[in-house]
Amino acid sequence: MSLIFRPLFEKESSTYTYLLADSNTKEAIIIDAVDETQQRDIGLIEELGLDLKYIVETHVHADHITSSCPLKQKFTQAKIVLGKINPVDCADILIGDGETLTFGEFALTAMTTPGHTDGCMSYVVDDKVFTGDALLIRSCGRCDFQGGSAEKLFDSISRLFALPDETYVYPAHDYGGRTVSSIWEEKAFNEMIGGGVDKAEFVRRVNAMELALPAKIHVAVPANQVCGSKIVSD
Amino acid sequence: MSLIFRPLFEKESSTYTYLLADSNTKEAIIIDAVDETQQRDIGLIEELGLDLKYIVETHVHADHITSSCPLKQKFTQAKIVLGKINPVDCADILIGDGETLTFGEFALTAMTTPGHTDGCMSYVVDDKVFTGDALLIRSCGRCDFQGGSAEKLFDSISRLFALPDETYVYPAHDYGGRTVSSIWEEKAFNEMIGGGVDKAEFVRRVNAMELALPAKIHVAVPANQVCGSKIVSD
Repeated sequence: MSLIFRPLFEKESSTYTYLLADSNTKEAIIIDAVDETQQRDIGLIEELGLDLKYIVETHVHADHITSSCPLKQKFTQAKIVLGKINPVDCADILIGDGETLTFGEFALTAMTTPGHTDGCMSYVVDDKVFTGDALLIRSCGRCDFQGGSAEKLFDSISRLFALPDETYVYPAHDYGGRTVSSIWEEKAFNEMIGGGVDKAEFVRRVNAMELALPAKIHVAVPANQVCGSKIVSD
Repeated sequence: MSLIFRPLFEKESSTYTYLLADSNTKEAIIIDAVDETQQRDIGLIEELGLDLKYIVETHVHADHITSSCPLKQKFTQAKIVLGKINPVDCADILIGDGETLTFGEFALTAMTTPGHTDGCMSYVVDDKVFTGDALLIRSCGRCDFQGGSAEKLFDSISRLFALPDETYVYPAHDYGGRTVSSIWEEKAFNEMIGGGVDKAEFVRRVNAMELALPAKIHVAVPANQVCGSKIVSD
């Protein structure tokens, strides 16, 4: 058995979607699928002959609309998965810390990693962690909406940093064209929390971020709360 | 020993740069590095503590300017590598079909794969092939400048298709956010040559491509013929 693993990129929002499958059973999981690229993703799932079991979100995104609902309409056996904290009605499974989803011989283990939003989850599969907007490459998620908390994010990233050093880090976004990092690298070089930054300094740095609201937040959050089943207009 | 492998993306030209290294010796190779992202790449090479041995190009690009020369100015021990056919003066090594470059316990093996340009090379490392603009995901390079030839490209892709089916395909570009494919997939699903398309039909399809010249071609080609040592103005 081996893991089929396909990172996919959506340029407009710089979002990574991850498709994972067991090469023998073809059972598959997709993480953070995006509305704009749903035809690409459906085509790839069909070409690879995959049996999509779970459509997983790291969180309710503010910068793009999920394709969870359209994917489920296409692959009707698939279950939509979101975190248990701050539950979303359209999910089939609300997953909690330490709970697992199996696909073939592989398992995805959920970790609650709140801070960017209060419902953020990370997911560990094999030697990979999918960190959503909690831990980004050399950076981290902002904490100024959707129940965000820099204090909670510090604790969440500290939990991620307890994973083995060689664990690969796959975030929900990268704006500089980087596709992967590792836990040891982020411990050493992350510009917000690396090199042993303490909680007070981390909170100061996060709160000093000066960012405009995501352009799509007023459309994306309501749309994602219904798993992208319809586009909510302004 | 294990392979450090970092695919990197440059958004403007949708170019992939690949950084590879031996995790023990730290000897490293970079393939198709781009001018715009040179600071990112230099930073990553330094953070990972790599010893850059080879700066490799799949071909003289028409759509972006290489950072070969600036990288060599920074990592003075590194050698610039291009293909032997249609040689470029600024290269330290002109590599031919079947020749290898070693980095730590790993080896890169060159394959001549002309057709997109007459000097195009592909490179095999372990279970990965870096196909430049010869074989793209579900597509292939155009053949209408720099000595391009659809007939030669058919023969080159046929050679690539003789690699093991499970070989991962890493192209120089993808415009749809796909990061990797495999030989079996391209044999089956490539829209230009997959599913057993014959040479005549492939040539017809390539010649029917209606594409504007790359916006930067008159700047990029002369600049890349000097390995990006200076930006040539229009």
